[in-house]
Amino acid sequence: MKAFQDYYPDDLAWCYGCGRLNEAGLHIRSFWEGEEAVARFDPRPYHMAIPGYVYGGLIASLIDCHCTGTAAAAAYLHEGRKMGTEPALRFVTASLHVDYLKPTPLGVTLEVRARVKEIKGRKVVVEARLLANGEVTARGEVVAVRMPDTMVPRAKSAEEA
Amino acid sequence: MKAFQDYYPDDLAWCYGCGRLNEAGLHIRSFWEGEEAVARFDPRPYHMAIPGYVYGGLIASLIDCHCTGTAAAAAYLHEGRKMGTEPALRFVTASLHVDYLKPTPLGVTLEVRARVKEIKGRKVVVEARLLANGEVTARGEVVAVRMPDTMVPRAKSAEEA
Repeated sequence: MKAFQDYYPDDLAWCYGCGRLNEAGLHIRSFWEGEEAVARFDPRPYHMAIPGYVYGGLIASLIDCHCTGTAAAAAYLHEGRKMGTEPALRFVTASLHVDYLKPTPLGVTLEVRARVKEIKGRKVVVEARLLANGEVTARGEVVAVRMPDTMVPRAKSAEEA
Repeated sequence: MKAFQDYYPDDLAWCYGCGRLNEAGLHIRSFWEGEEAVARFDPRPYHMAIPGYVYGGLIASLIDCHCTGTAAAAAYLHEGRKMGTEPALRFVTASLHVDYLKPTPLGVTLEVRARVKEIKGRKVVVEARLLANGEVTARGEVVAVRMPDTMVPRAKSAEEA
């Protein structure tokens, strides 16, 4: 099954969090499950805050990439288009908010579940919750905006990747 | 010169973002410069959002760890104690907010500059800005709280690190 991120055009598929072409990256992958978008992720042992608990920056990254991916998927739906059709709909993060409700245990598969709260013009607001062992340990909200046309990949760094 | 993070006790120095003992980690290091705390960081080439620009999750991580470190340093000052004295003051993130103002270029040293906005009880609020080439590209705010006594390192994972 193809993830939202599998539809990103090649030149926009290098994100450290979710780009399929970034070999060093996290490869976050998102799918619809009913009205929610879900990503599952197994942190590596070194992704810790303190021993036994997941690093908050990783949690922020999971929420960020999953929500911008969800924004793209929702925008295609909103326009009645299939994902992957041109022009590509790719979103960047305008703002990210995360509330860490309790420590997130390391060693279990994490689940990020997101819902679209608002679609308006070039903006999509997505809210997410992070679950470990079925328990919500963090909540987040991302304001995603269509990638500005001025933000084009800079070729030099792509070659360095 | 010792960074704030160099004073963390060994069992709390495993953070992927800023723990000196986490070999796979980012090793974010923070220092006072007058009333501001500053961390400088060189993203690796693969820390990209799209080619040429820094990954937002890394920016969130830099702000997160730098601000919790600043919270600890400020709490010691507030109590009139030297960093590293017992009992250790170590903070976790209750909430993290980041506004991405413009794309952050990859390939230059990033600077995170933080200021304490409020210290009250176990809570420290820290605001930060991220600069690239001297230009502010993101702003953040972290609500840091003293690590709860119940959140003790889980030995098993420490061995796996």
